[in-house]
This record gives sequence, C-alpha cells and structure tokens, in this order.
Amino acid sequence: MKIAIVGAAGRMGRMLVKMVEEKSVAPELEVGWKIDIAEGFDKAWGDDCEGVVDFSFHAAVPELAEKAAAAGIPYVIGTTGLTADEQARIDECAKKIPVVQSGNYSLGVNLLLGLVEQAAKVLGAGYDIEVVEMHHKHKKDAPSGTALMLAKAAKAGRGGGEFVFGRHGETGERKAEEIAIHALRGGSVVGDHTVMFAGDVERIELVHKAQSREAFAAGALRALVWAKGKAPKIWTMKDILFG
Amino acid sequence: MKIAIVGAAGRMGRMLVKMVEEKSVAPELEVGWKIDIAEGFDKAWGDDCEGVVDFSFHAAVPELAEKAAAAGIPYVIGTTGLTADEQARIDECAKKIPVVQSGNYSLGVNLLLGLVEQAAKVLGAGYDIEVVEMHHKHKKDAPSGTALMLAKAAKAGRGGGEFVFGRHGETGERKAEEIAIHALRGGSVVGDHTVMFAGDVERIELVHKAQSREAFAAGALRALVWAKGKAPKIWTMKDILFG
Amino acid sequence: MKIAIVGAAGRMGRMLVKMVEEKSVAPELEVGWKIDIAEGFDKAWGDDCEGVVDFSFHAAVPELAEKAAAAGIPYVIGTTGLTADEQARIDECAKKIPVVQSGNYSLGVNLLLGLVEQAAKVLGAGYDIEVVEMHHKHKKDAPSGTALMLAKAAKAGRGGGEFVFGRHGETGERKAEEIAIHALRGGSVVGDHTVMFAGDVERIELVHKAQSREAFAAGALRALVWAKGKAPKIWTMKDILFG
Amino acid sequence: MKIAIVGAAGRMGRMLVKMVEEKSVAPELEVGWKIDIAEGFDKAWGDDCEGVVDFSFHAAVPELAEKAAAAGIPYVIGTTGLTADEQARIDECAKKIPVVQSGNYSLGVNLLLGLVEQAAKVLGAGYDIEVVEMHHKHKKDAPSGTALMLAKAAKAGRGGGEFVFGRHGETGERKAEEIAIHALRGGSVVGDHTVMFAGDVERIELVHKAQSREAFAAGALRALVWAKGKAPKIWTMKDILFG
Repeated sequence: MKIAIVGAAGRMGRMLVKMVEEKSVAPELEVGWKIDIAEGFDKAWGDDCEGVVDFSFHAAVPELAEKAAAAGIPYVIGTTGLTADEQARIDECAKKIPVVQSGNYSLGVNLLLGLVEQAAKVLGAGYDIEVVEMHHKHKKDAPSGTALMLAKAAKAGRGGGEFVFGRHGETGERKAEEIAIHALRGGSVVGDHTVMFAGDVERIELVHKAQSREAFAAGALRALVWAKGKAPKIWTMKDILFG
Repeated sequence: MKIAIVGAAGRMGRMLVKMVEEKSVAPELEVGWKIDIAEGFDKAWGDDCEGVVDFSFHAAVPELAEKAAAAGIPYVIGTTGLTADEQARIDECAKKIPVVQSGNYSLGVNLLLGLVEQAAKVLGAGYDIEVVEMHHKHKKDAPSGTALMLAKAAKAGRGGGEFVFGRHGETGERKAEEIAIHALRGGSVVGDHTVMFAGDVERIELVHKAQSREAFAAGALRALVWAKGKAPKIWTMKDILFG
Repeated sequence: MKIAIVGAAGRMGRMLVKMVEEKSVAPELEVGWKIDIAEGFDKAWGDDCEGVVDFSFHAAVPELAEKAAAAGIPYVIGTTGLTADEQARIDECAKKIPVVQSGNYSLGVNLLLGLVEQAAKVLGAGYDIEVVEMHHKHKKDAPSGTALMLAKAAKAGRGGGEFVFGRHGETGERKAEEIAIHALRGGSVVGDHTVMFAGDVERIELVHKAQSREAFAAGALRALVWAKGKAPKIWTMKDILFG
Repeated sequence: MKIAIVGAAGRMGRMLVKMVEEKSVAPELEVGWKIDIAEGFDKAWGDDCEGVVDFSFHAAVPELAEKAAAAGIPYVIGTTGLTADEQARIDECAKKIPVVQSGNYSLGVNLLLGLVEQAAKVLGAGYDIEVVEMHHKHKKDAPSGTALMLAKAAKAGRGGGEFVFGRHGETGERKAEEIAIHALRGGSVVGDHTVMFAGDVERIELVHKAQSREAFAAGALRALVWAKGKAPKIWTMKDILFG
C-alpha cells in the first residue's frame, strides 16, 4: 500500500517516514510521496497513491483532503486546530471517502479512553474519580488535552461530573460529583496519565505511560491500514478500536 | 427485600450482616435470618425470605440451594471448593432460580477482569503482558487466585499465552507469548493486583487495590439485588457488570 | 517498663492501650495506668510509673508533664495544638526529663522526611520536585500536614523552593524553584504521600502508604522506649531515627 | 577542563562526547581526545589532558589507567568485567591518582542505594523487603545488576537477609529474612527499580525510573569533575554522593 505523508518535513512527518521505511509498525505500507512546502519535498502525490496521513498545518488540510476525495483514497488527519470552515470541508470529503480524525493517535490512550468510560459507568457514583497527569517541564499549559479527554470520558461514563483543578485550603469534604484533574510537571516526562476510581473498600487505577512520541505516529499508520476499504465517514480511533 | 445470610457466624458472614444492617451498600436489603450451625444462630429461613447469600462451607451449600430453588428465590454463592457432585446439584437448582456464583465478588476485580480481556484483545501481540500481585506475609500460596484469573483473562483476550512465574538467571530474551506472574508478599497488604501491557512506545497498567475484605461482601450483596427477578441460570459477576 | 497512657478514652488512647497489651510493637511495655477525665479511668499514675505517652487535649498536657518532670520519667507528646504558654511550660520540663514531641509519630513518614531532605540535597536544582498526597473524601483541608512537612524537607534539602498548589490554564514553562503539592481526595484512603524528583534522564520517587492509624500509635510507643535514660531535652522523631 | 573519552566509538562513548559538547551536564568539561581502536579516532591523549572517562573494553583499561597515573590525572572507569589481574593493576594506579569505579553511574540509582540501606536499618526486621525491577524485552538475564545491588544494600542495612527469586506454589508464610527480587520484562523499558518495605501498618517504596541511558553518562562526567584534586584512592559513586 503506497502512501503519501503530508507534513513530511515536520517532527511528526519525519517520524512517520522513518517508521514506514523501517516496516516496524505496518509492514504493508510503503512511502510513495513525502509532501511538504519545504524545499526538496514532493508537492503532490501520484495516481497510484492508496492513502494519505496528514500531520501538517490546519490551513493546508482541506485542499489535500478534497484531492483525496476526488481520488477515492482514505485520509488520516493528525493535524489539529482546524477552523469550523475547514472542518466543514473535511465533513464534505467524508461523504466520499473514509476519513480518520483524532486528537491523539496513540493506541494506548485511545484504549484507555474506552476503558475509563466503561469503568465509570460500571462503578457509578460511589467511586470518586481523580485524574493525574505528568509532563515535562517545558509544557506551557495545564492540564494536558489527553487528561481532559480522559476526564470527559469518565464524566460521560458516570453520567455527570464537575471538573476541579487542584485543591488548596479549607476545601470542605469532597463532593461526589467532583472529577479532579492534577497536572504534574517535571524533567523530561513524555506523558503519564492515571485515572483513579477510589471507593470505600477498593481502588481501581487505569494508567498510560508514553515512552516516546512514536506512539502517536504508530497509531496514525495503523488507522490508515484500517481505513482502506471502509465506508465514507469521519471515523475516530474509538471506532477503530472498539468498532 | 428480606434475606438470609448463610454462614453468619463466620468472618464473611458477620461482615455481611453488619453491612446490611448499616444500609451502606444495598439499603433495600434487610437481614431476616442469620443461618449457621453455630449456637445461637437460625437454622432455617422463613416463608417470606426473598433471597440468600451463602459464604459457608462447600458441603452445606447444595441442600440450602435446593430449598431456595423450591421456594423460587435467588441464591448467591460465595462459598468455594465445591466438589463436582455438589456443583452438579447447584446446576440443577439453576434450572429453577437465578444463582450467582463467582470466585471473587469485588466489583473492582470483576470490572478489571473485563477491562484486561479487552485491553489484551485491542493491543495484541506487540504488547508484553506482566501481572504483579502483592498480599500480606501470612498468605501461604502464590500466585493469588485473582492474579491467575487476571492472567487467564489476558490470555483469552490476546488469544494465547504461556504463564511464567518469576525469572532468574540466563533467561534469554523475553518471548512474546509469555504472560509472567509475580507474587510479592509483605506486611499486611490486603491485596494489590496490576496487569501491565508494555509496548515499544507506551505502557498501559490496569490496577486494583483492595482496602478491606468488605469489597467481597459488598459485591455479593449487590449481586443478590441484581439477581432478583432474573431468569433461572448460573450467573457470574461478569454477567452482572457487563451484561 | 510500666507506663501511663494519657487520653486513654480517646481513639488514639484506646489504640495505644490495645497495642501495648497485645505486645505487638514494644513487648517491654506494660500499661500501668489509663488516664482520662472520662469516668472509669485513672486520674493519676503511681510512684512506679516509668514513662508517659500523652494523646489528650492541649490544655491538659503541661500539668501532667510537670508531674513527670518532678518524677524524672520520660514524656512522649502526641497531642497537638499547644499554645505558646503551654509549650513554654513543656520546654521547662525538658530541662529535667527527656520529652519527645512530634507532629507525626509514624516511623515511615519520619524516615521519609529524612530521605527526602537528603535526596533533595544530593540531586540539586536539576531535579524538579512534585509532592502528591491522597486522603479519604472526608478530609476537609488540603494539602495534608504531612505533605507540607515533606515539601518543607525537600525545600530545606535543596536550599530553597516556592510552593505551588495545583496548575490550571496558561501556566508557562515550569520554574525550577517550584515545589508543587497536589492533593487528591477519594474513597477511604488512610494517607498516601509521594515525593517525585524528575530530572532530564531519570526520576526518583519516595513513597509512603499508611494502612491504618496504628502507625502513629506504634511510633509513639517506640519513642517512649527510646527516650528512657536519654538526656533532658525536647527530642523529635528525627533524633530518634537519624540520631 | 580538557578531557579524554576512551571508547569514543561505542554507544556510551558517543553519548559522552555529545553530552560534553552540548554542555548540558558539566559545562566546565571539554572533549580534547576521542580515543578508540576504531579508525578515525585518537590513539592517545596529549600532555594537557586533565582527566579521563573510560567506557571501553576491560582488557584495554589497565594500560591507559597506568598512563593516567604517570600523568597524575583522575580516571573514571565505567567499563565492567575486569579480571582480577586487571583490577590489581587499577588498584596500583589508585595509589597515585584518584580513580572512580562504579557499576552504575546514574546519580539517582546511587542515591537510591544509600537511601535503601538507611531505610532498611531504621525500619528493621518488622518491615518485609521486596525488590521489583522492569527492563525491556531484549534483556537476557535476570535480575538486573542494579536490582542485586539494591537488594544487597537492603541486606547490609538490615543486617542480614536471604534472597528469593519469584514465588510459585505452596510457599508457606513469608519468612521475615526473605528479600525477594522480581524481574519484569517487557516492551522498551529502559530500567525501573522499586524497593518496598511493607510493615504491619504502613509501606515505604523507594523508586528509580531511568528514562534514557544518558543517566549513566551524566553520572560519569559528574564523577570526573568531582575527582579532580581528590586524594589517590579507588572512589565509588557512594563516596561522591554521601561523602
């Protein structure tokens, strides 16, 4: 399966190219085109292109997705920050081709999102939910997008919840509806996330530890292999994992 | 819902009685009869009994289950070690009444069993599975029954696996099919279980920490409430949690 | 060694009496007097009393400590909230007898305080320090006193630090001098504390998990055994552990 | 401080060169000579060399250490597997120059060794000791050398202990003198080590997580800076950290 990698000059793009060439994740894939506005890169893919992975810039995505739609090949979008207009054009493309679009392509994080939602549903209101994330000292915002996604999955599973960010002073007793999110920062940690369910007699903890950003690249490649031949639609990693 | 607790003089039985009386777990339940061979306890339940929880002795279970079957009321069995003959008699009862039978009634452990099976299925062969359990220093066997149940759930999810118990010496590289189980012992730990899935770029860990044996009692009471009105069958905690 | 337990009717006092009688922690000790203002308890100890453990009420401590000073026997104070005047009277007593006074008599927490200070000193400014604590849902303030003690030990070891309580929003990059303290609440957790040191290439984590309040009682009893025959002075658990 | 890196073509050597050039760990250091038998590398250092770090091959170490001894400059040895004869020659050199020799130059692991010994001493026989390590799936032996060093530190601190490797079957109750070592394998884990002390009322856990092999390179460079001007002797990382 000969594919195009869009944003091939960027950090994620280079990682995707390397990963496909090393055949470590999805041996059936082959890099046909390295597309980027940077010099020395391809500016378009050829007629025999069978799929596209896009980690580029939001403004660049719609036009290329439309080309893929015209060609009838699957399109995997890792680029974030699309405007409403840009997203609307993607939605149009998804009437013709399978599009995969997700905020985090890590297999493990997406698995965890599903498990957290289930756990919150099964355990119910008697289990207090706390989310703890840790990232490197250079991260400039808190909490992480993934921690928020996990908190939302817990809220959806339990059927409600009120987000709390840290605790200090005379807080009073914990309210059952709280879902607290704690953001640790330090060193070079790539990204750890823990969702705790603390009951009166037991605790359950669901944990993800990213060891490298390759997790995101690997997930996007797996998504492309999966998407080949699927129905036209916006698919998410959740569809891919939990069908 | 007026119920009978069988084995009411034992450690689990006393806990069940206390828990029902405190209305902390299943407020709709009421202790009608405390049944035990010990002096001062009831020897049978009355006509208005609506359900039975049994944490007694294996030899005692079939006769009482048959009485429940005759009365048409649900029967929850926490007693373990039934012989094949005893089990066959229970199976007969389950043609007339809903019977719940499980090796561990903790809500959290049973949830974890389901999540571990799913995770193993989704993550596949590229993620190495290791199970770690810790129990108090008085425990005389290893690994715990729950650790084995978790390892089996992982094996079922992944579609295969070879159990390994500890590693020492020139082991060679880890084989992908290994599912290693490590038994830690120390202090007064009630029971911790962790299932790790270690991939090339990320780790997922699913953890259960029991804080007291009440977890088992609470689960059995919830099972009884759930079983009321269900079809005649042997039900497990898995049915109750994951429908 | 025949001792008096002051505040014997209270939760900690009852635990101390039970622990001494069971000979589980300090077999050389014997309960001579259970002192409390409650009915049915002793109001004073006898001439053969060899030491006192006091978990009572702050206003009651000075008078009894003075009696111990007159008798020349060691006095262990677990009672907190002494006024400046009351403390001054204790300080006077400590000119005649060994007094042990500490905010937390758990052996493990006091050990951890020492280890954290050392680790912070050895690791230096290149390791980011984060403190995480978890307590049951009924705790009304945050962070725990022990978490603050740990953060102060880290600050003392490193030679500076700025406490931060939770993170939310556009925080910018982490400042090296930050020592963040995160307070998790949930279920029935007795008390977990973790101090993390996150560097560019490695992490060190020092963890304490309290399983029951007996840890505090056990430490006070060990302190009394230790104090026998020591010089007149206010001693702390730090002196006892790290000499 | 102009230094020579011996074994400069190897994995650790290349990392050392890069780390010194990037000035990230020890800005006072400068790479004067990259020594290796491989083509294109230096074969000897010059007269203005002020120190040597050696991660090469055991047979190569003595001759170079003798040259350093003749020149009166400090020598840091990360190479392992020296024969008794080779070691004897190093011991001779250490009569003239400061030599640092350690099985693991990670600052954090060496700190942990010291903390574990202290903790074992302070906590005493009432706390059960368990060591857990996890490494990547390619590691061919178990347990890790570092886990053994940690177990030995615990044994030394407590004043005795019997090593156990895994548990399976009818083990009987845990013996107080056991120090169990559990070796987990999976994925790409660089190296995690945990030493647990489990008592009747509390647990203490001391944890090290290596994020990259740079930890070892960084420690060796720090050792060289420290060794400059020290007395002739075989020094270890323990001396450097705990004086």
